[in-house]
Amino acid sequence: MSDTPVGLSSEREIARLISKVERGEVTDVAGELALGTSAGAHVIGITGSPGSGKSTLVDVLARQMRADGRTVAILAIDPSSHLTGGAVLGDRVRMSSHSQDPGIFIRSMGTRGSTTGLARASRDAVKVLDAAGYDIVIVETVGVGQVELDVLTVADTVAVVLVPGLGDTMQMNKAGIMEIGDLFVVNMADRPETSRFVRDLKQALAVGARHSHADMPPVCCTVALTGDGVAELWATLREFDERDQASGRRQARRQEQQSRELTRRIENQVMAMLHQTMNSSPRLDRLRQRVWAGEMTPRAAADEWLADLKVHMD
Amino acid sequence: MSDTPVGLSSEREIARLISKVERGEVTDVAGELALGTSAGAHVIGITGSPGSGKSTLVDVLARQMRADGRTVAILAIDPSSHLTGGAVLGDRVRMSSHSQDPGIFIRSMGTRGSTTGLARASRDAVKVLDAAGYDIVIVETVGVGQVELDVLTVADTVAVVLVPGLGDTMQMNKAGIMEIGDLFVVNMADRPETSRFVRDLKQALAVGARHSHADMPPVCCTVALTGDGVAELWATLREFDERDQASGRRQARRQEQQSRELTRRIENQVMAMLHQTMNSSPRLDRLRQRVWAGEMTPRAAADEWLADLKVHMD
Repeated sequence: MSDTPVGLSSEREIARLISKVERGEVTDVAGELALGTSAGAHVIGITGSPGSGKSTLVDVLARQMRADGRTVAILAIDPSSHLTGGAVLGDRVRMSSHSQDPGIFIRSMGTRGSTTGLARASRDAVKVLDAAGYDIVIVETVGVGQVELDVLTVADTVAVVLVPGLGDTMQMNKAGIMEIGDLFVVNMADRPETSRFVRDLKQALAVGARHSHADMPPVCCTVALTGDGVAELWATLREFDERDQASGRRQARRQEQQSRELTRRIENQVMAMLHQTMNSSPRLDRLRQRVWAGEMTPRAAADEWLADLKVHMD
Repeated sequence: MSDTPVGLSSEREIARLISKVERGEVTDVAGELALGTSAGAHVIGITGSPGSGKSTLVDVLARQMRADGRTVAILAIDPSSHLTGGAVLGDRVRMSSHSQDPGIFIRSMGTRGSTTGLARASRDAVKVLDAAGYDIVIVETVGVGQVELDVLTVADTVAVVLVPGLGDTMQMNKAGIMEIGDLFVVNMADRPETSRFVRDLKQALAVGARHSHADMPPVCCTVALTGDGVAELWATLREFDERDQASGRRQARRQEQQSRELTRRIENQVMAMLHQTMNSSPRLDRLRQRVWAGEMTPRAAADEWLADLKVHMD
């Protein structure tokens, strides 16, 4: 655990490579990083709705990690923002207090062009920060849209931040939120409705765990503004790190990520090939005309085109 | 403009077909409907954030359309809800006042299984309601996630509902929201900040229109709770309908939808074929092992597998 990250020699160099990734100029980031060298960072995904105090929590948590001698990189992903190029999102301004500390790196990424582009660039940026030698990489995402779920697949451990109060049911029912969390953080836990909320949450998690034959994920209570509970959250994250490394779960998860990337690469290339074929097929043009004329359904036209198309894969 | 929809003989029959679509039991809804007969419904997409008063607005608007002799089907899509099978979403309870009117049909759809499943089922449900002979099909979606954008591709006209006040910038900057609207509705327009909000909105729309060389989309102000401005909104929607039919824009948009469906059908089948090939490829297994061992990047493995794979398309 060095105090200055190694691998990529300076913060400036890291930032420059992430910018290249963001502009889509790097086709094989793992290759660029000498076979995707992982320096063994613990990649922590932290997600939560806007207003959950997630950013404040990340700020306080990062201080705790620094105090414990860990170097930290924070990547804040906001698909609803069009800011890019390392632009500082609103709440990132607070983090400027870290700006004199070379052991902390902060970067925001918004939507530049497509949201799939953002997901890909974020995944690659995590690889860069891992290779750069930071002990911990925190990926902070807003909400749980498709992009966020995509990005969080590269995290070793995912923490979901919730807040007691209005919209509880909505927060919890959000597609995917219960499945994605390795642990849950109830922030603003000084609110009066906290104990009821935690009880309901644990009940829901127990049901989910039974269904998937998994362990019950831990629930941590924090008040980011006062720092209450943040030390316990940090201890829980460390436990995850140690246990997952010892059990081989960390490695299995990383291999799963690599398999997913391999699959995605193949799919993208086959799709590109398909689109090229479709764009220069007079037969498809004729079938399309027949669909427009109401002579056949899109489904029937698809079947007919594919039947006569020679697609061989072997 | 008949007062009872034709084509599918009863509301019960329509509901049953939509349920089949929802369960994924209909592979070719257009075929089922005798080549996707469009009875010429005006399909109106209405989208807006939770809290924009969108559902109340749809309710009041539907009354106005009924008073004008039009039959109306309302399809409320909520990807964050797991309810399904025609379940009544919270705010749909209000609509029960219509329940004695055979000229109005209301259906809610939530996520059943995958969100792509919801997008597909919603598109098919619109086709069913169109074929059933309703004069107007309103597709109401929450927010502008990927599913919503997918669903709204089947609308002839899309109205985006906004509310003056906090979060203006966030609402407007949301990826895709400015691009998707044919018209914009400023609801709760009795708020004091309305005039400033409308001015800012029009400015932003004017910039967008200049960039895309398109007409400036109309902005309607409404107060759904009192009904203010709803008659004007209905008049604007009728104008869209008449103008788009006369100019051929309606037909062009429908053809575009059919082309998109044809493309999607082909892509899905090729993907299925690809996955089958990948799942039974020992060569891919070996390449995956080499990636896991750090001997090659996922990108290089993908290239190598595809290079030796015989994919012929012609």
